[in-house]
Amino acid sequence: MQQLLTDHGVVVSILFGALSLAAAAVLIRSVLSADNGNSKMVEIAKAVQDGASAYLHRQVVAVALISVLVFAGIWLLRDTATALGFVVGAVCSLAAGYIGMTIAVRANVRTAQAASKSAHTALQVAFNGGAVTGLLVVGLGLISVGGFYLIVLKTSENPKVAIDSLVGLALGSSLISVFARLGGGIYTKAADVGADLVGKIEQQLDEDDPRNPATIADNVGDNVGDCAGMAADVFETYAVSLIGGVLVGFLTAAGYEQALTYPFVICGIAIIGALLGIGFVNFTKLDATRSLVGGVIISGVVTALLLFPVTRAMFPEAMIINGKTVGSNQLFLCLLVGIVMTYASVWITNYFTSTFHKPVRKIAKASETGHATNIIAGISTGHHATLVPVLCIVASIWICYSQADLYGIAIAVVSMLSLSGIIISLDAFGPITDNAGGIAVMSGLDPKVREITDGLDAVGNTMKAVTKGYAIASAGLAAMVLFGSYVEELKAHLGGIYVFDLMNHKVMIGLFVGGLLPFSFTAYAMDAVGNAAGAVVNEVRRQIDKFPGILKGTETPDYGQCVDIVTKAALKQMVLPALLPVIFVVAMAFLGPEALGGVLVGTIVTGLFVGISMTSAGGAWDNAKKYIEDGNHGGKGSLAHAASVTGDTVGDPYKDTAGPAVNPMIKVVNILAILIIPIIFEASKH
Amino acid sequence: MQQLLTDHGVVVSILFGALSLAAAAVLIRSVLSADNGNSKMVEIAKAVQDGASAYLHRQVVAVALISVLVFAGIWLLRDTATALGFVVGAVCSLAAGYIGMTIAVRANVRTAQAASKSAHTALQVAFNGGAVTGLLVVGLGLISVGGFYLIVLKTSENPKVAIDSLVGLALGSSLISVFARLGGGIYTKAADVGADLVGKIEQQLDEDDPRNPATIADNVGDNVGDCAGMAADVFETYAVSLIGGVLVGFLTAAGYEQALTYPFVICGIAIIGALLGIGFVNFTKLDATRSLVGGVIISGVVTALLLFPVTRAMFPEAMIINGKTVGSNQLFLCLLVGIVMTYASVWITNYFTSTFHKPVRKIAKASETGHATNIIAGISTGHHATLVPVLCIVASIWICYSQADLYGIAIAVVSMLSLSGIIISLDAFGPITDNAGGIAVMSGLDPKVREITDGLDAVGNTMKAVTKGYAIASAGLAAMVLFGSYVEELKAHLGGIYVFDLMNHKVMIGLFVGGLLPFSFTAYAMDAVGNAAGAVVNEVRRQIDKFPGILKGTETPDYGQCVDIVTKAALKQMVLPALLPVIFVVAMAFLGPEALGGVLVGTIVTGLFVGISMTSAGGAWDNAKKYIEDGNHGGKGSLAHAASVTGDTVGDPYKDTAGPAVNPMIKVVNILAILIIPIIFEASKH
Repeated sequence: MQQLLTDHGVVVSILFGALSLAAAAVLIRSVLSADNGNSKMVEIAKAVQDGASAYLHRQVVAVALISVLVFAGIWLLRDTATALGFVVGAVCSLAAGYIGMTIAVRANVRTAQAASKSAHTALQVAFNGGAVTGLLVVGLGLISVGGFYLIVLKTSENPKVAIDSLVGLALGSSLISVFARLGGGIYTKAADVGADLVGKIEQQLDEDDPRNPATIADNVGDNVGDCAGMAADVFETYAVSLIGGVLVGFLTAAGYEQALTYPFVICGIAIIGALLGIGFVNFTKLDATRSLVGGVIISGVVTALLLFPVTRAMFPEAMIINGKTVGSNQLFLCLLVGIVMTYASVWITNYFTSTFHKPVRKIAKASETGHATNIIAGISTGHHATLVPVLCIVASIWICYSQADLYGIAIAVVSMLSLSGIIISLDAFGPITDNAGGIAVMSGLDPKVREITDGLDAVGNTMKAVTKGYAIASAGLAAMVLFGSYVEELKAHLGGIYVFDLMNHKVMIGLFVGGLLPFSFTAYAMDAVGNAAGAVVNEVRRQIDKFPGILKGTETPDYGQCVDIVTKAALKQMVLPALLPVIFVVAMAFLGPEALGGVLVGTIVTGLFVGISMTSAGGAWDNAKKYIEDGNHGGKGSLAHAASVTGDTVGDPYKDTAGPAVNPMIKVVNILAILIIPIIFEASKH
Repeated sequence: MQQLLTDHGVVVSILFGALSLAAAAVLIRSVLSADNGNSKMVEIAKAVQDGASAYLHRQVVAVALISVLVFAGIWLLRDTATALGFVVGAVCSLAAGYIGMTIAVRANVRTAQAASKSAHTALQVAFNGGAVTGLLVVGLGLISVGGFYLIVLKTSENPKVAIDSLVGLALGSSLISVFARLGGGIYTKAADVGADLVGKIEQQLDEDDPRNPATIADNVGDNVGDCAGMAADVFETYAVSLIGGVLVGFLTAAGYEQALTYPFVICGIAIIGALLGIGFVNFTKLDATRSLVGGVIISGVVTALLLFPVTRAMFPEAMIINGKTVGSNQLFLCLLVGIVMTYASVWITNYFTSTFHKPVRKIAKASETGHATNIIAGISTGHHATLVPVLCIVASIWICYSQADLYGIAIAVVSMLSLSGIIISLDAFGPITDNAGGIAVMSGLDPKVREITDGLDAVGNTMKAVTKGYAIASAGLAAMVLFGSYVEELKAHLGGIYVFDLMNHKVMIGLFVGGLLPFSFTAYAMDAVGNAAGAVVNEVRRQIDKFPGILKGTETPDYGQCVDIVTKAALKQMVLPALLPVIFVVAMAFLGPEALGGVLVGTIVTGLFVGISMTSAGGAWDNAKKYIEDGNHGGKGSLAHAASVTGDTVGDPYKDTAGPAVNPMIKVVNILAILIIPIIFEASKH
């Protein structure tokens, strides 16, 4: 087995990836075979599907233009393999989002229909719709990274060339993912905020009232943002972690073939865990939260149990890495750290964003004294939410480093991300139930259906927050891996030893500029939502003024016009924030490798806190509103409720646009820096 | 002159400090000799004075307990001189705040009376009341640091001992200043928010309505927070910068006597600039903003012009610092960088917080669509406000480092802070006019008086924001100086060379933990305001329920009870956040010098952004409300106005509690780290 996994570990993992895709195909069949309800439901679902596809098509065109430029740049300034890698990464990242969303927009109407039978059937349809995305991401991730690596290796017969070209793949996936997170995030929140501002506040319409011209756009937004954007983001995190693991294995454990294939094997084996977890959710009859959490626990435990003998088999003798003796026990411990980190990040996010714990209830209570105290409580909750994750991250770094140096941290990151399959399944389940509720209301189904979907949606809200916490926490843990890759690449290309001493003023300058990036980036992202929402508000007001029959229910609003406007606005508004990290990295590169190294670390240090605090606060605000709507602190219609709606609206761009986009933004900074080393620094050496 | 300034520069600067105190005495006489109005006004002013003194007395008692413990710790674990330095720093920091506030609470009633004559007379009285604090801070700062240094030098005959003991002085001033900023900030905002929530929102009373039982507490808060807290904070910044300059001069420019006295001389000469600036505001008849800005410009220009020949005289020959040739031209350039940084930070803060520019108007416009959009616009403005200051800081670091290594940065920081005299004068002017307005309303003066004080107050709001931006920007610029001092102290005590490489996992862990501190600290600080405000709300509600005559105006509320409650609450609530940095620094020290070094830098990196974004957003929200109240976007009573009140209330703990307290918090972390080097690391070496 040792020989098989060492020599053919990549091939084996690709086979597991194929298994994952096959399972996704089975789930797609199962979802599509479910009853899709009456003709009204089909019609509404069709409108959402069309809007979502139209948006994604235009996003592809917009992103394609920029990608062609980047491709040309890499091709001219670096090499063909890296440029091709960029294309593969970009295409797979898009594909993961696109296919996942295509299924999600079909699962939503079927979930609504299933909810008219029972809550558990609805859970099953929605979860399986989400699991398609989960399996796609890990399957595509493994096959693209592994396959591309093997092809380049075969062609060039030089592992260094093959690994370098993977950096191109990482950049492709990261860049697409920034655009997808931002574009989708701006879309979904602009539509949401716009629909709420005119519909709910000015015209006192309910959520998802079909008389609101922006209501279809709002439902489209859930899909392009929470499904497609999220899938691209986690695909990127998964691919970059795997590539980081391979890179660090190659650079720090030189001479040990199995150090390079081990990350692939971890991801491959974890697919079995994911499949069993998905099976658990389908075949048990527990309530939603228990089913889903049970699925996560099973995935992690199965993955760990399987990897114990595998690790022993692959590393019968200890390696010597940077003076440390690293055997299978050390590696397995690092692997466990990654799995525990996953559990911890799920638990912590759940604590801060679920209606059952103190933080959300504190915000709900603070709403009694008005809008301002709700906001202060939410912001403070976001800041508080950074404490435990960061302490977990530093503890993980400490343990893994002591066990297996930088490679140990890389393994922890890979094992953390290897659980993506099940984690994304939970996340994608959220927007599907959210949309199912919308379709139920719009097509006038029994209010009981909406009650069932609302129950699932509250669980979905927490699960959505979980993925964001997970992605950004993994970026924190990966900080040293990404920085280490940068430093090793510097050595490989330029020779010599690089020290990034905090006493070097260039490093300090880099830290400040890097630290600035998440703040500027989120500022522009929040502005973008505001600008795009403004366009929606104007259009909704225009339609209501011009066609008075809309509010009376005698005329159908022009949903398409709203979809069109928010599509254009989102695409226009995403460009500036997405280019910000690119511009800063290229500019700072001219100050030299020390300054650029400082930028990488500075971005992670502030980005970690900005990302965690924004996504946690947003999730907590959302559920504080739900908690009040459940009849606490005066319930619907009270001052507390009005205040909680304010908090929820502030939380929208926090948790769905700016906050989650910080994770891919950090990656773009890091990978771009690695990529331009030979371009800028080698040139300036001559 | 060279010999005089090199050998006796410290003595000369102490004489300038004495001049500053003498000028303050003259201003005190002039303020006290102004007419203090009718008996009603005197009575109200007396209540505010009594409340403020009562609070400060109790704060002294509370802080004394903690200080005695710290003093004992330093005395036992380090040495007597350092422990005495701690006492001197703590006492002077308290004294600056105490005396400044004592004058401010007397200037406010006189400003109200002067405003019934003319706007310019009111400006003069209020400004001179503020200038007392400005002159006190620089005078006390120079005399305490210089005097203590000379005394220890004389006693020990060892410059190293004298300079080490200055670190104790720095810690004393920083620790007091964290407590003063936090305690005062919690007090002022708890009273303000509490008074607003019940008075304005529940009972529709106007600001400063005498029927509101919390109205005296609210006015007391302006004094204990914005006057005493601010004065302690800037005293700390001033003293620490001066000490940092001396320390770096001693450590990096060893053998050049004048490098050590030059920081003192800069501060001394700048007092002439401050006096001329204060004179300008008094003797010109421009409008408020122009007078004040003119005063700042004159102070800076005069200081620079005087220091040019002085620098040439003190450095007739170039020094060699870390391989760089550093002559008077290089040093003068660094000095100019500090003065330009001051102007830049004034200009930038003014841009982001004054009603005349885009950011505030954007927030005002966003208020039209409600509470949530107001908040989003404010938060985004805060994030945007970090860009230019940080770019200025990194440019300054770059220039100064290239000119004169670390010493150049230290000189820039000293020259920036040497302008404290005039900057604080502007700041302290704000709460005086704010209080004057309160007294005018409460004592039923002609509404025209309130109009005049309101006009001055809007200017004061921006000026208050300016000082906070200035203090936190100086902390960013001082980052390398503080870190450099830490590293040099490590070398001095432990020997050997220390490298803080970002590739060292301990450094990375330190960066994350340090980065965490400002987030946790501000979270607790915001909670503290909420908790203390809750106590005020309950008390106000109780009085109104129990004594129905209060609202009818037939019964006088028990103001003292509110003052008492908020005093106790503020003191109780300040302890946890103030101890947070102390606990983290001591705990992280056990992970070794690399981890602790990472903590220092991490705290500055995130603290800079958290501090700037919070203080800017808060100032912008406040003035957006004022802008709407001036009749824009629907004016008072509109939805936009209600939304802007929400923003202003959220901004209160942002700009007056959590945000400004980040600056002294950063300093405590840095100085404590320097101080415990020999205690923890030398012990663990044995």
